[in-house]
Amino acid sequence: MRRRWVVGDGITFLSDGSVTTPIGFVAAGVHCGIKKGGKKDLALIYSEHPCIAAGTFTTNKMKAAPVIVTQENLRPARATIKAIVACSGIANSCTGKAGILDARQMCDLVAKALQILPEQVVVASTGKIGLRLPMDRVAKGIEEAARKLSHDGGIDAAHGIMTTDTVPKYGAVKFKINQTEVHIGGIAKGAGMIAPKMATMLCFVTTDANITKNCLKKALSKAVELTFNSITVDGDTSTNDMVVALANGAAGNGRINSVSSDAYHIFEEALIVLLRHLAHAIVRDGEGSTKFVEIKVEGAVTEQEAKAVGFAVANSNLVKCALFGGDPNVGRIAAAVGRAPARINPEKLCVWINDTCVMRDGTVIEFDRDSLRTSLSKGSDVFIRIELGIGNASWTLWTCDLTHEYVRINAEYEV
Amino acid sequence: MRRRWVVGDGITFLSDGSVTTPIGFVAAGVHCGIKKGGKKDLALIYSEHPCIAAGTFTTNKMKAAPVIVTQENLRPARATIKAIVACSGIANSCTGKAGILDARQMCDLVAKALQILPEQVVVASTGKIGLRLPMDRVAKGIEEAARKLSHDGGIDAAHGIMTTDTVPKYGAVKFKINQTEVHIGGIAKGAGMIAPKMATMLCFVTTDANITKNCLKKALSKAVELTFNSITVDGDTSTNDMVVALANGAAGNGRINSVSSDAYHIFEEALIVLLRHLAHAIVRDGEGSTKFVEIKVEGAVTEQEAKAVGFAVANSNLVKCALFGGDPNVGRIAAAVGRAPARINPEKLCVWINDTCVMRDGTVIEFDRDSLRTSLSKGSDVFIRIELGIGNASWTLWTCDLTHEYVRINAEYEV
Repeated sequence: MRRRWVVGDGITFLSDGSVTTPIGFVAAGVHCGIKKGGKKDLALIYSEHPCIAAGTFTTNKMKAAPVIVTQENLRPARATIKAIVACSGIANSCTGKAGILDARQMCDLVAKALQILPEQVVVASTGKIGLRLPMDRVAKGIEEAARKLSHDGGIDAAHGIMTTDTVPKYGAVKFKINQTEVHIGGIAKGAGMIAPKMATMLCFVTTDANITKNCLKKALSKAVELTFNSITVDGDTSTNDMVVALANGAAGNGRINSVSSDAYHIFEEALIVLLRHLAHAIVRDGEGSTKFVEIKVEGAVTEQEAKAVGFAVANSNLVKCALFGGDPNVGRIAAAVGRAPARINPEKLCVWINDTCVMRDGTVIEFDRDSLRTSLSKGSDVFIRIELGIGNASWTLWTCDLTHEYVRINAEYEV
Repeated sequence: MRRRWVVGDGITFLSDGSVTTPIGFVAAGVHCGIKKGGKKDLALIYSEHPCIAAGTFTTNKMKAAPVIVTQENLRPARATIKAIVACSGIANSCTGKAGILDARQMCDLVAKALQILPEQVVVASTGKIGLRLPMDRVAKGIEEAARKLSHDGGIDAAHGIMTTDTVPKYGAVKFKINQTEVHIGGIAKGAGMIAPKMATMLCFVTTDANITKNCLKKALSKAVELTFNSITVDGDTSTNDMVVALANGAAGNGRINSVSSDAYHIFEEALIVLLRHLAHAIVRDGEGSTKFVEIKVEGAVTEQEAKAVGFAVANSNLVKCALFGGDPNVGRIAAAVGRAPARINPEKLCVWINDTCVMRDGTVIEFDRDSLRTSLSKGSDVFIRIELGIGNASWTLWTCDLTHEYVRINAEYEV
């Protein structure tokens, strides 16, 4: 009922698109034996054309080995990337020097299989922390994936990076830059440990756009800030997160080389549309969640403060449990607002839940509690609007409820 | 097994003591009709001698009406307090100007019943936010409580401030200052919404010590920092929290008037012993909790950073769910450490769970997982030690696990 997000003029969203939608990208997802039950646990993406690459990474100080290795490979100004390899089930984090060698070996194995250089490989892992990867199985998996690379392999790759996700997450957009059709595709995984600043999530983006590294970097930063950095499942961040975008230029558009150009703005908007779709998919699949909650904070002094208020509410276990129970508990929302690191005037705070005003000027007002309770219990989408009334800045973010199933999943979690 | 806290020399802890243990204090707890089922919901404490008072209050910007009124009454330099009134079930928060008038009326009613001045009353409420108090019932409750005031009434008063608490929380200490026996007693309530900076908790402390306002204030701040501000149940803070201490001087000791005196140090230590007991009682009774978790962070650059690391771990839903499941999930602990706003060196981090080293120099090491799992599942106390290895500062704090029962309580919570 509350999909308030529309795709901009001239941008077409492709719900069955993925990283293999852009021209020149192939992918595969295979089971190599890290996960139980034959589930896919390794993904490989390849572009025959060398790619410009940009990435954003976890801000967690306990960086996992693949994050360290990928950052090394992306660092050189002239780095050209041709492949992404990712495995799921084990995070290769907190594994010391041995883990770094394992991550490098994954690059070597991909390089050998695809006849490219090890430093042209982006490497990622997700899953349980503190265990070593079974490198013999990973090696076989990489060989198999390299053999299976195809233009239809994007969704298999999306399966290959899932952990506690219940559905694979993928999509693509197409749009025109001066008459030339351009595509951006992506796959992502999320589920738990989702919070701003890159919580356990992986997202790989491919595009056939012809674009400079600087423009790709700027567009990715902006899009990640508005999407992946504006969602939270449980406030926990991970050691392994990364969003990496590869651009191979195969679409043949005139190069996007200025952040003030129209072409850049179209590209950036299309990228935001895609990443917002993937970010929402992660929240909707939040561990054990039954509600998708959009929180819009308006009237703040700065955007940062609007975001801080939003996250204080979005990360409140009490608010999240109330939403699970269908309880329009405005008091818990107000208490969360009051503890955010932001300027507020207690006498100006107004709150709406699903368009029903529940607090005006800091005072809880009379409202039809039964009807709101029914709308909260019935629908899977909840919309909370918080008006601070002291400025002009706003921010929108997304979260889910906190449920018995979240506790079950995270109390019993085992590889 | 892990009560690592010992009572200092010369301080006797009285487990059945309370606010009526110090000389000259009487109290009562009654049912006035805010809560269902005849449960006590109003507490009154009275000292015939006028008291020096000190308080620490919620830092939440959405302060509840009784917090505002109590702060007004404590503000004058020469304020002398004679009574504390607190009701439970409704928080009188987010109730606008009408709520302020209700809180003031509670002071007026107590003043009338006890023949004192309204500004000599500390007023508090706890419970659901956004509802008005049923003032006619509260008025009758205050009259009844005033009639029932007694030297044995402290534990009844502890019952009168409970919300989702399953047990009342009380205690007292006695010690000597230059041959004179002095007492400090307290009652507290907690359960959910517990976090540093005064989360929904009320604590009332009485003492017969003869002490200056300045010394009482300093000792209370220090003790609260080390106890109530070092516990967390769910990271949520409330609009109503307060710790108020009253000192009536009835013990007749030579006045404690310098923070560098021996007498002051004995008093401060005794107060810390009492407040630590009450703070631990709150965590042990955390909503739905099955584990009491002590987290000790050592080797930090500053105490503030040690505390920040501790709270990042203590507030991690993933860590808390793992502890509920008896899972020695060192990865989640390391990830929480890594996202704390503190300096860390990933290559120096060491972690112990119940004395078993599980991470050394940033790498998860081999340990007897089954035996640790058994010790976690069997015991109700968990001890996590985190050694950052980069400085000399440390901090200890306490939390509980996150369980199905927490979700149930907070999804279904209704007055």
